[in-house]
Amino acid sequence: MAGQTAPHRIVIIGGGFGGLYAAKELGKAHADVTLIDKRNFHLFQPLLYQVATGTLSPADISSPLRGILSKYRNVKVLMDEATDLDPVQKKVMLKHQDVEYDTLVIATGVSHHYFGNDHWQLSAPGLKTVEDALEMRRRIFLAFEAAEKESDPEKRKAWLTFVIIGGGPTGVELAGAIAELAFHTLKEDFRTIDTTETKIVLVEGLDRVLPPYPTELSAKAAQALDRLGVTVKTQSLVTNIADHIVTVKQADQVEEIPARTILWAAGVKASGMGKVLEQRTGATLDRVGRVTVEPDLSIPGYPDIFVVGDLAHYAHQDNKPLPGIAPVAVQQGKYFAQLMQRRLKGETMPPFRYDDAGSLAVIGQNEAVVNLKSVKLSGPIAWFIWIFAHIYYLIEFDNKLIVMIQWMWNYFTRNRGARLITGESTLAQDYGESSSEKSPVEV
Amino acid sequence: MAGQTAPHRIVIIGGGFGGLYAAKELGKAHADVTLIDKRNFHLFQPLLYQVATGTLSPADISSPLRGILSKYRNVKVLMDEATDLDPVQKKVMLKHQDVEYDTLVIATGVSHHYFGNDHWQLSAPGLKTVEDALEMRRRIFLAFEAAEKESDPEKRKAWLTFVIIGGGPTGVELAGAIAELAFHTLKEDFRTIDTTETKIVLVEGLDRVLPPYPTELSAKAAQALDRLGVTVKTQSLVTNIADHIVTVKQADQVEEIPARTILWAAGVKASGMGKVLEQRTGATLDRVGRVTVEPDLSIPGYPDIFVVGDLAHYAHQDNKPLPGIAPVAVQQGKYFAQLMQRRLKGETMPPFRYDDAGSLAVIGQNEAVVNLKSVKLSGPIAWFIWIFAHIYYLIEFDNKLIVMIQWMWNYFTRNRGARLITGESTLAQDYGESSSEKSPVEV
Repeated sequence: MAGQTAPHRIVIIGGGFGGLYAAKELGKAHADVTLIDKRNFHLFQPLLYQVATGTLSPADISSPLRGILSKYRNVKVLMDEATDLDPVQKKVMLKHQDVEYDTLVIATGVSHHYFGNDHWQLSAPGLKTVEDALEMRRRIFLAFEAAEKESDPEKRKAWLTFVIIGGGPTGVELAGAIAELAFHTLKEDFRTIDTTETKIVLVEGLDRVLPPYPTELSAKAAQALDRLGVTVKTQSLVTNIADHIVTVKQADQVEEIPARTILWAAGVKASGMGKVLEQRTGATLDRVGRVTVEPDLSIPGYPDIFVVGDLAHYAHQDNKPLPGIAPVAVQQGKYFAQLMQRRLKGETMPPFRYDDAGSLAVIGQNEAVVNLKSVKLSGPIAWFIWIFAHIYYLIEFDNKLIVMIQWMWNYFTRNRGARLITGESTLAQDYGESSSEKSPVEV
Repeated sequence: MAGQTAPHRIVIIGGGFGGLYAAKELGKAHADVTLIDKRNFHLFQPLLYQVATGTLSPADISSPLRGILSKYRNVKVLMDEATDLDPVQKKVMLKHQDVEYDTLVIATGVSHHYFGNDHWQLSAPGLKTVEDALEMRRRIFLAFEAAEKESDPEKRKAWLTFVIIGGGPTGVELAGAIAELAFHTLKEDFRTIDTTETKIVLVEGLDRVLPPYPTELSAKAAQALDRLGVTVKTQSLVTNIADHIVTVKQADQVEEIPARTILWAAGVKASGMGKVLEQRTGATLDRVGRVTVEPDLSIPGYPDIFVVGDLAHYAHQDNKPLPGIAPVAVQQGKYFAQLMQRRLKGETMPPFRYDDAGSLAVIGQNEAVVNLKSVKLSGPIAWFIWIFAHIYYLIEFDNKLIVMIQWMWNYFTRNRGARLITGESTLAQDYGESSSEKSPVEV
């Protein structure tokens, strides 16, 4: 079925971990590879919360896709967005052109999920893109500025209250980082407010933070958050967000928390290409729209269409879907590339198996939890493992260097240099900002 | 006149070089100092072109004002914007409150000047703020992406043509940096276009680039630009910008240059506080709206109101106004602080004298011109002097470190890591971008 003389055309949609590692791995294959992404860079999402909280700059955790792939002459990058698919003609429709494929890989990931409350989005932004992170950064640092200007004590308290919804790794990381900001970094910076009066509330629906981790590590994380000054509310559901008030229901208790900064870290849903696959190929979607894949990551009935990364629902191992984390996406991307190379030689490949090396989550300085196959760790050693794992996986060498220096600097000074308030918010009015801050081209 | 028991209240408007150095210098004075800025950070503007061209991140050249000033307990930072002034009641009106002063310093600088063609702003953005720089970065890198997707050769050529208007230091720096991008950094990154076919045109109205420099250095700069592949057009006036065409008039010749990326580096005009001073105090403004100041930087008839930095028109030395550059602003800010401290002791201070240590402009790697009192230099040595002068003047130590490492890395690899296309443009349609790239809060 594969081309005999002309190279096989492989089209990869999405330059996240799944798509990028597939493309890199195919960089020496006898195949024409096209990587399509609507952005011109790969984003190292695991560190995005550090952009949101003023430690790193977007460019520190991003690498231009063209730069990473330029040495592979058979790989082409196209900045465009897939909108539809014709699996019979074997064609992907992009915003600006159509592209034909012999084999297609879809790796477009997931976005925020508000469980039917999409209007909460404006009040409680999520964290998936660079723009999301800069919006969070704006809100966090503007809240302290607004509190400094506010004379009404109740309103000031609301400005100094941060509610983070979702006690998974992202929620824990955000809560910990905001606590360090309020109780250390910004402590000496204001003259009217006392930033140590800041209230940080982490709300989780299940009975513990970091639910996918072993219970003892969840307990360690909760203790570390408590030491940092974060109020953790488990078995608590957010039932409403309106007028700068978060309504939290815990058993029969209903609490209303006035808070001007509300951050969403609670759920994800599949990107639009899931729906397209369902319509065009009859693929099965799960509850959050992820595509159920075969043991080889292709979709049923279409051995030439693959789904990898967060968008894939892979339940052939342990009978529960693999988590939406970077290592799964990387391994799936690489698996696809190996399968493809074998298939081009007429060989077959055993089913995909996720090799779970363990998982890590960071809470704050010297505070992390690490769940390895045989060892569970918390505290400073776990934190060091977290640091080095993240530095190691950063794609480009200059990113590694810059991030390492930023972290070393922050470690000793507890300073955070990237706490700029830039760009614009639709909430400008709310934050009492000047409208003349608009950049001229946006007027 | 100064307060006897209560500390003298000094209000500084603007946290650029003039305002910040005044505040720092007053950090040990017996005075209550309030620094007001609409942004929460000081921006090292001389390196802004490196953000616009993908070498540095905004945070690398910015420092949070509160962070810089937190150790001076008599200095308070207020994030707000001045809108009016009452010199009789000695009060500044801000967007959110009024502030009383005993002595007032206005250091609000300048913005772009389109010489009566304000509608060119959309087509040809200028470079003064972080948002300006990110907009330029968007446009520059999107132009290459759009060219890669464009099949019409004429249109493709327009995408690969960059016109920079204004041959002063900023224009020269931008032209040189874009040339390095096109001819080095991006050379291997595309599969359809050849980035070495890029055309970069620098348009200057006077008879040479870098007009304030000695003629031999202007000539050296022009030669260096030529070697880098920049077309320099002197004695050339832009008479129109419309429909992606720049009309350039040189003597009797009129040329129309189709170009999708047009950058403005041609002129500045005073910020709005100049007009407020004219209305409220009768101060004299010059042709571009700068405020004529007395030999001690105060304004005529108001010994308690000072103007420092780019907004000041100071012509008491050499009978021509001092240039709008960082060293002038720094020295004026410090001069004010010293005058103030003497005045509080009942002493006087001789008039302000600008100590001109020389000026520097960079063209590209190993290419710069340096005009010192007794020496004129160009080439690699000048470039090294430029590098170290800029590192030295960066405010915070972590900025120095990060910028130095970025530069070292770029020197050896010619790579530029910060070439992300982020945020949104009103020109999204133009660039064939997806509207779904909007971050959720902006929808």
